[in-house]
Amino acid sequence: MTPAARISRVEITPVAFADPPLLNAVGVHEPFALRAVLQLHTDSGLVGLGETYADETHLEALEAVASDLPGLDAFDTGRIYALVADVLSRRSGAAGDGVAGMITGASVVNRVFSPFEVACLDIQGRTAGRPVVDLLGGRVRDRVPYSAYLFYKWAEHPGADPDEWGEARTPDQLVEQAATMIERYGFGAIKLKGGVLPPDDEIEAIRALHAAFPGVPLRLDPNAAWTPETGIRVAQALEGLVQYLEDPSPGIHGMARVAASAPMPLATNMAVVAFDQIREAVAADAVQVILSDHHFWGGLRRSQGLAAVADTFGIGLSMHSNSHLGISLAAMTHLAAATPNLDYACDTHWPWKTEDVVKPGLTFIDGALEVPAGPGLGVELDPDALGALHEQYLRCGLRARDDTGYIRRFDPGFVRKLGYW
Amino acid sequence: MTPAARISRVEITPVAFADPPLLNAVGVHEPFALRAVLQLHTDSGLVGLGETYADETHLEALEAVASDLPGLDAFDTGRIYALVADVLSRRSGAAGDGVAGMITGASVVNRVFSPFEVACLDIQGRTAGRPVVDLLGGRVRDRVPYSAYLFYKWAEHPGADPDEWGEARTPDQLVEQAATMIERYGFGAIKLKGGVLPPDDEIEAIRALHAAFPGVPLRLDPNAAWTPETGIRVAQALEGLVQYLEDPSPGIHGMARVAASAPMPLATNMAVVAFDQIREAVAADAVQVILSDHHFWGGLRRSQGLAAVADTFGIGLSMHSNSHLGISLAAMTHLAAATPNLDYACDTHWPWKTEDVVKPGLTFIDGALEVPAGPGLGVELDPDALGALHEQYLRCGLRARDDTGYIRRFDPGFVRKLGYW
Ligand SMILES: [Mg+2]
Ligand SMILES: [Mg+2]
Repeated sequence: MTPAARISRVEITPVAFADPPLLNAVGVHEPFALRAVLQLHTDSGLVGLGETYADETHLEALEAVASDLPGLDAFDTGRIYALVADVLSRRSGAAGDGVAGMITGASVVNRVFSPFEVACLDIQGRTAGRPVVDLLGGRVRDRVPYSAYLFYKWAEHPGADPDEWGEARTPDQLVEQAATMIERYGFGAIKLKGGVLPPDDEIEAIRALHAAFPGVPLRLDPNAAWTPETGIRVAQALEGLVQYLEDPSPGIHGMARVAASAPMPLATNMAVVAFDQIREAVAADAVQVILSDHHFWGGLRRSQGLAAVADTFGIGLSMHSNSHLGISLAAMTHLAAATPNLDYACDTHWPWKTEDVVKPGLTFIDGALEVPAGPGLGVELDPDALGALHEQYLRCGLRARDDTGYIRRFDPGFVRKLGYW
Repeated sequence: MTPAARISRVEITPVAFADPPLLNAVGVHEPFALRAVLQLHTDSGLVGLGETYADETHLEALEAVASDLPGLDAFDTGRIYALVADVLSRRSGAAGDGVAGMITGASVVNRVFSPFEVACLDIQGRTAGRPVVDLLGGRVRDRVPYSAYLFYKWAEHPGADPDEWGEARTPDQLVEQAATMIERYGFGAIKLKGGVLPPDDEIEAIRALHAAFPGVPLRLDPNAAWTPETGIRVAQALEGLVQYLEDPSPGIHGMARVAASAPMPLATNMAVVAFDQIREAVAADAVQVILSDHHFWGGLRRSQGLAAVADTFGIGLSMHSNSHLGISLAAMTHLAAATPNLDYACDTHWPWKTEDVVKPGLTFIDGALEVPAGPGLGVELDPDALGALHEQYLRCGLRARDDTGYIRRFDPGFVRKLGYW
């Protein structure tokens, strides 16, 4: 009567995919980005997919949970959450997160639980014959808009051939990068990763983008590279030019100081990254938009809880990205399609990578993705691609994301820019 | 591939079931309580059940939504929510709520949407072959504890035969009522509906219950019958005797005044009954426990959103009841089983009714219900019982709950007790 969804076996495969030299406040992306691909097998022969960080500490935590998972039912995500909490409480130290130290304070339990929950929802959808979005209340939109994600970047990784995007240091180069990205994918919103150049240079870049793409919503995210005083100055200089300003300054206190004088909403995926930080942020009116991210907010259903909190407290909702593959892109799309108050185009690093573990991947049309029809996440693992990217993981030698260590190999005096300018 | 869950037809059946003369701050329960039973039929031959208020205005709103529902998919509850909002925006006036004017400010959209969502979840569970709890994240508990619900009451409805419970006016009579209820159902917590007698009498009743049932958690709910000054005085007199004090005084302001001096948490299902009231309540630290109720918080998934909000803001969570049948009891049980931070035994009026529309009904063992195994809600409609209770609805002549009008037929000078003492 009740279809079985008993988990019989868990495979966790770390993979590495080529990543261009994208600059940020703490350094530059290494030649490879790491991800872990989860396959949850059931007695009934189904496989659910999940994707998360692959920093070594995180992998160890995932493996510890995985070994306790067989025998549990894929619909019992509440019990699996309790299991994760229990397993982690018996381990010491925090799980690695693959975000280069830019996101601290996120719940380790939520971070470790997330890919298991996504894989369980994939199984649930496959069991029910329905797409994951239908397990989250159904779609309130059929197409999920994403934002172009511009980066200052080097022309190539040192010692390697130039990539197809070339260098981006100047406003003109960024405008060209945006034009290519919009031409290819049709994005209707643009985000610039800042915190790389002095603030006045980045103001100039936003002005150039605004002039080149009039009417296209813009965002600037310096990853808290500015003091609150600088944050206020930049915010005022960008009045009317950006739809929100993301993490101008560090912490809830820094954000609150900028917010008090900023003419636009402030967004964050740094000052508020866990449920236990929301109360203080609300009391201080520190952030007006929270960038959800199911990878550290505890999966898709907990991200819906975050959406309920944001809606209740009049906080806008957008979606954060760091470098990811097609499993996470599908999960993000199902979640966004089911979330009425996701007010902004979602972030994605998607165009910056050329390799994937699912085939066919999702296709951006007019800057948006159709919600995969399912069942489950609606994407299928390509075993050859998985194997190749796992080989690449083994060969590349990277075991944790370290943008700062990498940039210092070429620029020994590099300073991380938290509250720097 | 994708199992069809297309809604083909909606039946809404108002029913009346016998209700004893239970007293409260606004009057006394009439001889019959009204409920509406929803049956959502699908093309595939499934039927999903929902239950809600049956006040006439509410029935009209339900019918208006029902006529637009065929053709929609039962998994598309996000779109059905938007449909409800749209239908209601085209109607004037508020929907009746069957709570005798004790709960105002609840969202009409959430109230009208709720039984449709529950019926859709029932269909979803039947489609997937899984219990509704599994669509909400799975059970974090197998058994859901409920509270005994004591009432001051008359021995009988005027002109009718005495009911089996007899009169309850004195502490001794309440202790006897509690003893019977615990003996029959094994409840491990006790709630007393107050606001009926002067506060000192109700303090005496709680003292008598505390003496008779040492160690059993007690609650008193006067439905905001007291001024804040009285609320503070009673709260201090009940120190150490109740686990929470429910709605001592009216409104967020009144609750905040009492809370500032109360030695126990204050609970509410009157001051905070909608998402748009939470911000103010949090800012004022007015309530420490919110009684969720899927009938006016917008169904089971929105109640999970409320749970996320409560958890985030350190607010406890309990569950409210008004007179209901077995469909709602099953829905409450699935929701409670999936909600980790439901910290208290749930309320239920269950033992006060003898009639039902589902058979077999759920059975209390040791004061708790096993989560129905499903699929869906796990209860089946009894067409004969439904027909009989619908006939009773037609015969009884009641079309809206009016505790105050009813008591005034026997006590013309009766005063509603909002902030009275
Ligand atoms: Mg950011
Ligand atoms: Mg109450």
